[in-house]
Amino acid sequence: MNILLTVSYDGTNYFGWQRQKNNISVQQRLEEALSELMRKNIEVRGASRTDTGVHALGQAALLKTETSIPIGKLSYAVNSFLPDDIAVTGARLVSDEFHPQYSVIKKTYRYKILNAEFRNPMLRNYSEFVRQPLDIEKMREACGYFIGTYDFAAFRASGSAAKTTVRTIFDLSVERNKDIVDIMVTGNGFLYNMVRIIAGTLIYVGTDKFKPSFVKEIIASKDRIMAGKTAGASGLTLMKIYYKE
Amino acid sequence: MNILLTVSYDGTNYFGWQRQKNNISVQQRLEEALSELMRKNIEVRGASRTDTGVHALGQAALLKTETSIPIGKLSYAVNSFLPDDIAVTGARLVSDEFHPQYSVIKKTYRYKILNAEFRNPMLRNYSEFVRQPLDIEKMREACGYFIGTYDFAAFRASGSAAKTTVRTIFDLSVERNKDIVDIMVTGNGFLYNMVRIIAGTLIYVGTDKFKPSFVKEIIASKDRIMAGKTAGASGLTLMKIYYKE
Repeated sequence: MNILLTVSYDGTNYFGWQRQKNNISVQQRLEEALSELMRKNIEVRGASRTDTGVHALGQAALLKTETSIPIGKLSYAVNSFLPDDIAVTGARLVSDEFHPQYSVIKKTYRYKILNAEFRNPMLRNYSEFVRQPLDIEKMREACGYFIGTYDFAAFRASGSAAKTTVRTIFDLSVERNKDIVDIMVTGNGFLYNMVRIIAGTLIYVGTDKFKPSFVKEIIASKDRIMAGKTAGASGLTLMKIYYKE
Repeated sequence: MNILLTVSYDGTNYFGWQRQKNNISVQQRLEEALSELMRKNIEVRGASRTDTGVHALGQAALLKTETSIPIGKLSYAVNSFLPDDIAVTGARLVSDEFHPQYSVIKKTYRYKILNAEFRNPMLRNYSEFVRQPLDIEKMREACGYFIGTYDFAAFRASGSAAKTTVRTIFDLSVERNKDIVDIMVTGNGFLYNMVRIIAGTLIYVGTDKFKPSFVKEIIASKDRIMAGKTAGASGLTLMKIYYKE
């Protein structure tokens, strides 16, 4: 059986999604919970390698195993073995051809900014703090320049080794609700740190460091040095992964 | 000088507001930061004793001291000595007669419920989780029975020693935003655990364990055993304290 799990987590206390030798990852905790539940050694394959401190409400993880646990009860069963900063919120059967990375159509991320005079202690692990008032209209204008298919080499962390740096952004928007500014972005895939560099660039636009139209020049330059700084990990949440099936 | 500070905190990692001998409290951390900043021993007097795990966006603390730090810069100055789960978000001068508890006109608390099929790891410390769908209309109907001046002895944790159990609730409302249900309550004062017992009672109404009108009978009984169970600490946030001056 090929089972696709939807996974939520608070990334604050983990060294990212991906299993590592010396640090605790979300993947390791999930595999441990599944192994305990199913009384055999279980490995999963995740859709996205989220970094340390990055959160998820819609990570996906593929599990290939036979089990007598009804698919409708699997989430509840796994959750009883998981720590309370990780939760499985869905489980469904997928075909043998399904691949957690190659079968992706698009992904949505949210980047949360606290735009206020003072920090909010309760949001310290879930937002980027920006004291200077953000000009939302200018940020929205800048969003328009990102939407489409471009070579996003300027929005890739140095050292990343993707084969191609061409990606399509289907949607990018900015919403303010009191002192919270949410950036929502949907694309067919994202380069390493791409969403955080887009967020950092939009923060530069919102604080008048960059003109909105400067985004066009950044993209054309294909040069990381041109874009804004990489916004912090804690503001980022992987919201949803859309699959072919 | 009599200085009133507004204080925000994430109560997760503290044994409540009030200074204690063997456990770390928010008050202790704030006094330590102020003492370091002002280079003398500083004590503050808080408006409300929040419990372990309870949060605040608008706690108030009175500080009697002479200082050469301009009042407009005090918040920023203190914050640089505070851990990131506590923040001072305001400072103003008040009269010599001001008292952080007796000068209160009213206080507002929020009680946050996650009403969803699965837990949200990011809200685990900031909400009460209720899986069964809540009937918001019934909860709102129940709210009406709380508003007014009553003897709220039935909504007081046993062992509490308030002189009178008569309190006035000016406003009590329930709002749903997707899977978040916020209860907002404003009153001239609250008995020990009163807001959490009101929240627990409203959850019983929302899940059909109590009829809305049963609230009238609970109040009339003056008997704690009649009300719903005390909802968890993590859902509760002290939002604002309104003062005479």
